[in-house]
Amino acid sequence: MTTPHLPDDLTVHIERGLADLRDLVALPSVSAQGRMLPETAAAVRALLETEGFTVHEVPGDVAPVLIAEAGEGPATLLIYNHYDVQPEDPLALWDSPPFELTERDGRLYGRGASDDKGEFASRLAAVRAVKARHGGRLPLRVRWLIEGEEEVGSPSLDRVVREQAEHLHADGCWWEFGSRTDEGRPIAYLGLKGILAVELRCRVAASDLHSSLGAVVDNPLYRLARAVASIRDEVGRVTIPGFLDGLHAPSDADLDAIRRVPGHGESTYGTYAVTRPLGTPPEYHHRLNLMPVVNVNGWGGGYQGAGSKTVLPAEGFVKLDFRLVPGQDPARVVELLRAHLNAQGLDDIQIVELETHQHPARADAGHPFVQACLAAAREASGHDPIVNPSSGGSGPMFPFMDALGGLPCVAMGIGNSGGRAHAPNENVRRADFEYGVHFGVALLERLARGS
Amino acid sequence: MTTPHLPDDLTVHIERGLADLRDLVALPSVSAQGRMLPETAAAVRALLETEGFTVHEVPGDVAPVLIAEAGEGPATLLIYNHYDVQPEDPLALWDSPPFELTERDGRLYGRGASDDKGEFASRLAAVRAVKARHGGRLPLRVRWLIEGEEEVGSPSLDRVVREQAEHLHADGCWWEFGSRTDEGRPIAYLGLKGILAVELRCRVAASDLHSSLGAVVDNPLYRLARAVASIRDEVGRVTIPGFLDGLHAPSDADLDAIRRVPGHGESTYGTYAVTRPLGTPPEYHHRLNLMPVVNVNGWGGGYQGAGSKTVLPAEGFVKLDFRLVPGQDPARVVELLRAHLNAQGLDDIQIVELETHQHPARADAGHPFVQACLAAAREASGHDPIVNPSSGGSGPMFPFMDALGGLPCVAMGIGNSGGRAHAPNENVRRADFEYGVHFGVALLERLARGS
Repeated sequence: MTTPHLPDDLTVHIERGLADLRDLVALPSVSAQGRMLPETAAAVRALLETEGFTVHEVPGDVAPVLIAEAGEGPATLLIYNHYDVQPEDPLALWDSPPFELTERDGRLYGRGASDDKGEFASRLAAVRAVKARHGGRLPLRVRWLIEGEEEVGSPSLDRVVREQAEHLHADGCWWEFGSRTDEGRPIAYLGLKGILAVELRCRVAASDLHSSLGAVVDNPLYRLARAVASIRDEVGRVTIPGFLDGLHAPSDADLDAIRRVPGHGESTYGTYAVTRPLGTPPEYHHRLNLMPVVNVNGWGGGYQGAGSKTVLPAEGFVKLDFRLVPGQDPARVVELLRAHLNAQGLDDIQIVELETHQHPARADAGHPFVQACLAAAREASGHDPIVNPSSGGSGPMFPFMDALGGLPCVAMGIGNSGGRAHAPNENVRRADFEYGVHFGVALLERLARGS
Repeated sequence: MTTPHLPDDLTVHIERGLADLRDLVALPSVSAQGRMLPETAAAVRALLETEGFTVHEVPGDVAPVLIAEAGEGPATLLIYNHYDVQPEDPLALWDSPPFELTERDGRLYGRGASDDKGEFASRLAAVRAVKARHGGRLPLRVRWLIEGEEEVGSPSLDRVVREQAEHLHADGCWWEFGSRTDEGRPIAYLGLKGILAVELRCRVAASDLHSSLGAVVDNPLYRLARAVASIRDEVGRVTIPGFLDGLHAPSDADLDAIRRVPGHGESTYGTYAVTRPLGTPPEYHHRLNLMPVVNVNGWGGGYQGAGSKTVLPAEGFVKLDFRLVPGQDPARVVELLRAHLNAQGLDDIQIVELETHQHPARADAGHPFVQACLAAAREASGHDPIVNPSSGGSGPMFPFMDALGGLPCVAMGIGNSGGRAHAPNENVRRADFEYGVHFGVALLERLARGS
C-alpha cells in the first residue's frame, strides 16, 4: 500500500496530528466506566479553540457533548466524532500499554488510535492544513459535534441533535468512521441500518419441574423455539406479517454502487471459517446493505451443564436484534412482532425492549455531497472508492438526517480490517492516518470551492 | 391418616426396622461422590445374612451389587432396592443432620429415610415378621437385588441383571419405590417410561461474529429453534415421522386403571403454579401414563447477560429428553430424529447421545402378581390403591422385564408427596413405614399361600 501524491505541506500537520493523537490516547476516557470524560472533553475543547473554533458544551447523560464551529464560506460541513473509547480489558492481551500510543511496523497502537481519537486527530490536522493554505482562514463553515457516549449507545445524541439543530445544519455530514482495504482503497458507507433489540421471555410455572411432567405441562423453551422459528425463513427473510411493508426502494445509484462492491464476502467467510453462509454469493453485498434481518443474539434456560438433567425449566429467554432499513420503525416492529406472536398462539411470550434502539438512515449515492466525498477520496488515495449505500451495522445516524432536513451522512475514515477496534491492540496504520489528513484537506477544499 | 388393622406381632419388627434404618442412614453412601459404598454394601449384606440370606456380591462400575436369596415355597418374589443416596447438599437447608435419623411430628428425617434405605429396611422387617409367624422359616423364595448405583443412573444394572438372570427369575418384582396419598391411599406404578437424552449442537463459524453479519451468515440458535419447533406440536405430540409407530396398545385393565386415578393434576398444577398445562383435564393421567413426549431440558448459546449484545454466536446447543413407552427403542428414536433433521435441511445439526438412556417397561394391570400386590396393599392400608400402569418418570425396569421373561414389576412403597426425596429434609412418615412393613407381610403371605 502506498499513499500517493501526499502533498509536501501536509507533513508538518500529520506530525502535529499524531502528537494530538498521542495526548488523547493517554486519557483513558472509557464511557462504560465513567472514566476521565470531562477531562477528555476539556482537552478536545482546548484543541478546537486553539484552531479558532467557538465551542459550547451541552450536558449529556453520561458525558458532555461538544458543539463547535469555525470558518465561513459557500459550504457548511458537519463532522461527527466521539472522544470516548471502549474499555481496555483484557489488559494481558495488549502488546504495549493501551493508553500509550506506540508505533510498530507502520502501525500506531493504542485504545482509540482508530476508534475514534485517530479519526478526530486526523480531521483536525486537515483543518489546520487547509487554514495554513488559506492564510489562517478556514474557507468554509465547519461544524463539529463530538460526543463522549458513543461506546455506550449515544443515549443523549438524539435529544442533543434535535435541541441544537440550529447549530448543526450543513450540506452534509462526515461520519465518525470509515476504512480502507489492505490495498489502500477507500470504503465508504452512506447509511446505517436501524436496530431494535428485544428479549422474549416465557414462563410456564413458578419453579422448575421434573421433566416427566412434560406430558402435562408445556415447555417454555419449546414455545420460544416456535416463536423464533416463525419469525424468519431458511434463507433469512423475516416472515413477520407487515415487516417488509413500505421499505424505501434503493436508487439506481445505490444499486449500481452495490453491484460494484468487490467480492462476495470471501474475506469475512474466511476470517471466521463460516460454514453456513446465507444467500448465494452475488447477493452478499445486496443483503448486507439493503436487507432487514433478525438475529438471535443469545438463548438461555434450564440446564446448561455437562450431560443431561431431567428438568422441565420454569422459564427461558431469547435475545434478538432486528436490523432495519429505511421505511422501517423500531416501535412499529415491536407492534408487528406482538401481533405475530399473538396470532401464533404465543400471547404469553413477553417482549421486553432492550436499550439498543436506532432508526435506519441512508443517503442516496447520487447526492452531490456524497459525490464530493468520493472525489476527495479518489484524489487522496489514488483509488476508486468502494461505496456501500449502507453498512450492515447500526448507529445514531437517523437523528442527523431526520432533524437536519435529510442531511446526507458519509462514513469515510482511517480504519483498516486488522484495526482491532474494541479489542486489544487496537491500531491505525500510519499510511491511513496520512491518507485521512489528505482526504480531509481534499474534501474541505472541494466543498470550499463548491465542486 | 391412620394405619388400620396393624397386627400386634408387627410392632417389634417395625421398631427393629427403624433401628436398621437409623444405622443405614448414618452411612453417607453418596454414589455421585463415591462415598462409603463398599462399607454400606457390607452393612446391608450383614443384615441380610443375619436373616439367613445367602448373598453374593457382583462388582459394579461404581459400587458392588448384592444378590441375595432366602426361603423356599410355591412362589418366588424378586425385590429390587438400592443402598446409595443422593448428595446431602445444600447442607444449610436441613433442619437436622442429614445422616442422623431424626423424628419430628410423625416424620423420620434423614438422607435415604425414604429413598431407598427406608424402603429396604421396612421390607427386611416384613421378612423377619413373616419368618417369626412361620417358626423361623420363610415360606416362599425371596430374591433380592440391591445395587449402589441407582442415583447415578444404574450404569451396571443392565449387565448384571442379564448375567445373573438365573439367580433372579421370579413370579414378580417388587420395585424400589412407591408412595401413599396424604389420606394413606397406596399409589402403585406398574411401569416406567423409557428415556433418551440427547444434545443438539449447531455451529456456523469458528468464532462469534458481529450480528450485522446476520444478513449473510446463518444463525445457529435459529437453526436449533427450527429443529425444536419441528419435533413436537402445540399440544405436545411428537411429530418426528415414525416416532409413534408400533406403540404397544394398553390393555383394557390399563385403561380402566387410568380412568380411576383421581383428579386431573390439580395438586401438581397448584404446587408449581403452572400457567401452561398441556392437554385437557381428563387427559392428565392418560398423558402421564401412556404418552411419549419430548422435553427441552436446557438451551444455551450466545449472550445471556443483562441488556443486549449485538453478537451472532458461532454455536449453540439444546438438551432434550424423550420419554418413551413400550414399543419404542431409544436407538431407533435417534435414527428417526437424525432422518427428520436431515429432511428439514438441518443435517448440520449434531446429535450427541447423553448417558441417560432407558428402555420403557410396563406390566399389564391384569397380571396375577399385580393383583396380589394390590390386594396386599388394600389389606394393609384399608384403602383401594391408585394404579398407574406407568409412571411418567423413567428407570431401569426394562432389563428385569426383558431378561427375566416379561417379569412384571410393581412399584409400591412408603414415600409421601412431602417426602422431599433428593432434597434437604428428606423424610418418611412413621405411619408409612409401619404400613410398609404391614404391606410386605401381607404380600409375602399371599404369595406363599398362592393367593
